[in-house]
Amino acid sequence: MRWPAGVLSSGVACGIKQSGDRDLGVLTFEAPTPWAGVFTLNAAAAAPVMWCREHLGAPVRAVVVNSGNANACTGAAGLNAVRSTTAAAAAAANCSSDEILVASTGPIGIPLPAGAIENALPGATASAKRDVEPFAEAIITTDTAIKTSAHAAGGASVVGVAKGAAMLAPNMATMLAFLATDAAADTGLLHATLAPAVGRTFNRISVDACESTNDSVCLFATGTAGRAHPHDLAKAVEAVCADLAEQIVRDAEGGSKFVRIRITGAPTEESAAAAGKAVAASALWRAAVGGGDPNWGRVLSALGAADRSLDVSRISLSIGGVPLFVEGEPTGALKDAAATMTSEEIVVDCFVGSGEGAAEVLSADLSEEYVKLNAEGTS
Amino acid sequence: MRWPAGVLSSGVACGIKQSGDRDLGVLTFEAPTPWAGVFTLNAAAAAPVMWCREHLGAPVRAVVVNSGNANACTGAAGLNAVRSTTAAAAAAANCSSDEILVASTGPIGIPLPAGAIENALPGATASAKRDVEPFAEAIITTDTAIKTSAHAAGGASVVGVAKGAAMLAPNMATMLAFLATDAAADTGLLHATLAPAVGRTFNRISVDACESTNDSVCLFATGTAGRAHPHDLAKAVEAVCADLAEQIVRDAEGGSKFVRIRITGAPTEESAAAAGKAVAASALWRAAVGGGDPNWGRVLSALGAADRSLDVSRISLSIGGVPLFVEGEPTGALKDAAATMTSEEIVVDCFVGSGEGAAEVLSADLSEEYVKLNAEGTS
Repeated sequence: MRWPAGVLSSGVACGIKQSGDRDLGVLTFEAPTPWAGVFTLNAAAAAPVMWCREHLGAPVRAVVVNSGNANACTGAAGLNAVRSTTAAAAAAANCSSDEILVASTGPIGIPLPAGAIENALPGATASAKRDVEPFAEAIITTDTAIKTSAHAAGGASVVGVAKGAAMLAPNMATMLAFLATDAAADTGLLHATLAPAVGRTFNRISVDACESTNDSVCLFATGTAGRAHPHDLAKAVEAVCADLAEQIVRDAEGGSKFVRIRITGAPTEESAAAAGKAVAASALWRAAVGGGDPNWGRVLSALGAADRSLDVSRISLSIGGVPLFVEGEPTGALKDAAATMTSEEIVVDCFVGSGEGAAEVLSADLSEEYVKLNAEGTS
Repeated sequence: MRWPAGVLSSGVACGIKQSGDRDLGVLTFEAPTPWAGVFTLNAAAAAPVMWCREHLGAPVRAVVVNSGNANACTGAAGLNAVRSTTAAAAAAANCSSDEILVASTGPIGIPLPAGAIENALPGATASAKRDVEPFAEAIITTDTAIKTSAHAAGGASVVGVAKGAAMLAPNMATMLAFLATDAAADTGLLHATLAPAVGRTFNRISVDACESTNDSVCLFATGTAGRAHPHDLAKAVEAVCADLAEQIVRDAEGGSKFVRIRITGAPTEESAAAAGKAVAASALWRAAVGGGDPNWGRVLSALGAADRSLDVSRISLSIGGVPLFVEGEPTGALKDAAATMTSEEIVVDCFVGSGEGAAEVLSADLSEEYVKLNAEGTS
């Protein structure tokens, strides 16, 4: 896959990952480029997230992304590392530090080896090309595959890459995504396009309900293809975000099942999404999914814990299209439902009977493998 | 252990559990007895919980508890089962149905075999004695041990039994507890005594952050020992609740570690408890505990996700007494902290630097065993 005109990238190994895999990605823009960004709301936001937030609104020339270290909860040294790497990137790109963005992903609380990044930046910047893959590979951690997507926006295009989470994130262990379009758009339009798309895609995936210190999604617009209709641009951006979000969940570490939780009949779209996320966050339900058990009681219990005002007698729930609970009464069709749970993709439909709001949340099962991987740790 | 004067109990096998283990407990009172109860807030509350809530305030003569079936999400049939079992218990105890309480624990959504309970009730009621153990045994599900506690309240006593959760509950898969005192107390005093005690004990344990449809804690006062000082009674009730809560967490299914999360320096006690519960709910942190990894970054990340206003630069955190993060800066003492995590009990101290509020939350690790047990399911 290739970036839109005006965007180049590279991915190199600078020595952060002990494996020797690529761990430094650089995205460069031929001219100062407007952008929008959506970042984690975690109060323990990483140093690179703080830097990007401070630079929202001004055009950028390059983005430096490292994997293998989150540079989060690293105190004053973490902020210094951001300052020195952005200075090095600015020197390599012949611009000011304030035109450089940074993102990091990996374990929390370990000092970032900024020197390794700085040494590799001139070479990485000089070797940047239109190809997406080396960059996409440099930003992953324990993802088993790179994640890319492209959609047309009228005569322009939107291209995106993402990394999912070692730790089956909704957000944790960090979800990073970078989208670029050759459509012409100012910061205001980019933000108005990106924020709702993220809300309906990346914010509706949940794997372990842990929120990262580093989540970042950025959209850059080079403008080389001229103006696109805002509606076309919004559709393409949301399509790329949705593609990447689904790729992240399908690559959930330790996960063997892909679960679509569809909530309908909620008071609002937001409350439908909240209900879906409550189900997606239930360790009990997720363990049942892993075991192929259509344990609808755990779904109802999660819904009831999340919304005290729920009227159970109006709820109808099916798994794999098999009704298990209809307007407050169990159907007993467990065997039929169990048969549907052997497939790789499981669909839970839940009508909560209190309005017109609907939302779909994507999640994965909770496996012994997940626990094992995350018990091994990184400290 | 023996109940206070005026309280009798029994535990028999009525045929709900396929294992043939005791699954029906009956608690009887020699006279109509004032009581207070605290119940799950889950909107999908079980039929027995609805019944008890409706009968709050009026004196009771007996409590019927079954294990092996939650009678939750069972629709109209579930309410009918409560009506028929309370009628049978009233006949056996020679009182009115409105003087009978009920509680159930086990899998959700399966019709309760009320007939089996009704057949066993006359014998179970007639054989009730002062001994606590058969009743304590009849109410457990996958607990590996019965849970009992007794404390003096001046010249009176408070005796309690509880069952913890198959599924490592905070609340899920149901926490039931029954306390009785021979102190004289009216409903108002009992509620004023029980509610804060539950708030500081059972509501500060968390194993898998799933909230049950059936959680119930009841306190009965026979009055046979006369009045106790309200302060003595409150202290004894809280001590019994704290004992039972700790026993539940120590028996967490699949758990191998007992974790005390102590939050200090929070704006209020409630916010400290909320912060502690956010840490206790983190699958990533709990997996790290299981692996003996002092992954303090996952603790900070959970705190920051739960409270957006947290000032990370004021936070200090230690594990097993080893400082890992001091006023916003990592100490790097991971090896020393890892050495403390081989013990069965792990203490996390977290000072959040924004007030005087403090609370302790008890939890367990997330193990592969937990996932395995809950994947097997019951459907």
